[in-house]
Amino acid sequence: MQKQVEYEKAIKTKYPEQVVIAIAKDRNGKANPVTLGWTMIASGQPPMMAIAVAKTHYSVETITHSRCFTIAFPSAEMADAALFFGSRSGRDIDKFAEFKCQTAPAVQIDSVLLAEAVANFECTLEQHMHAGDHIIFVGKVVASHVNTEARKRLYTIGPGHKLGPV
Amino acid sequence: MQKQVEYEKAIKTKYPEQVVIAIAKDRNGKANPVTLGWTMIASGQPPMMAIAVAKTHYSVETITHSRCFTIAFPSAEMADAALFFGSRSGRDIDKFAEFKCQTAPAVQIDSVLLAEAVANFECTLEQHMHAGDHIIFVGKVVASHVNTEARKRLYTIGPGHKLGPV
Repeated sequence: MQKQVEYEKAIKTKYPEQVVIAIAKDRNGKANPVTLGWTMIASGQPPMMAIAVAKTHYSVETITHSRCFTIAFPSAEMADAALFFGSRSGRDIDKFAEFKCQTAPAVQIDSVLLAEAVANFECTLEQHMHAGDHIIFVGKVVASHVNTEARKRLYTIGPGHKLGPV
Repeated sequence: MQKQVEYEKAIKTKYPEQVVIAIAKDRNGKANPVTLGWTMIASGQPPMMAIAVAKTHYSVETITHSRCFTIAFPSAEMADAALFFGSRSGRDIDKFAEFKCQTAPAVQIDSVLLAEAVANFECTLEQHMHAGDHIIFVGKVVASHVNTEARKRLYTIGPGHKLGPV
């Protein structure tokens, strides 16, 4: 049976929620990673992925500037990196300089991959749409990569940025 | 270490993937549920949710017509309903008539809730965007409901529509 409640309470039923790390270069060529839980596949043919990025986030500038981005599926071992990339701003720091995380060059776009991730998807920005306090960016996947070793994907498993495998 | 592979192979690392059932009424007043894995939260303030619906699906017509929809988080016990609602078309049948699934009226929109779901979100259609072979619909959440009993959310846990809790 259903009971009407505040949205803030009802949305706590969403866990586990998948985590991705989106990466785009700023106008100085600095690759900026951001951790996001609001993401989905948006098309099968051609393959496209969507992310919702808070309008105030530096990633809005980096993605709008470079018109491409990587979507990495972090592995369960990458919880500390995901927390760091999600809690600091690329306006203030060089996240990859401050938190060591092995990267590799992308092959089809001007961005980087996360070497230890479960998978990486190189996306070219196709379109965007405003949605409340976020912007939805839709990218077409132009190259895909997987880890050569088996890895479990990282999820947010509860409130307060509690991260782990499921 | 990363290895470049076909998208179809790389995207198999996405599991578990959350499942929602979106419900909108058609022009005859028939409530039509569809099971979707491509969904995300899109805004925090105001709360908004996005779904990607295949352009060929009847749900494109129902959502476009009624300009509102329910997003239900099915419970792990609702796997059979989720499979049925995701594999049949509302063009051909009345899904709620053929697969018994307890509903309740929505309170703010002209749609229904799933009584046994983990949670239900009533959404008014705010905007949409084409993305490849899908349309992204963004709805503003105007009412939220949770199950009065503890329920685990349903996920797609592997290829071939393998459903279960995580």
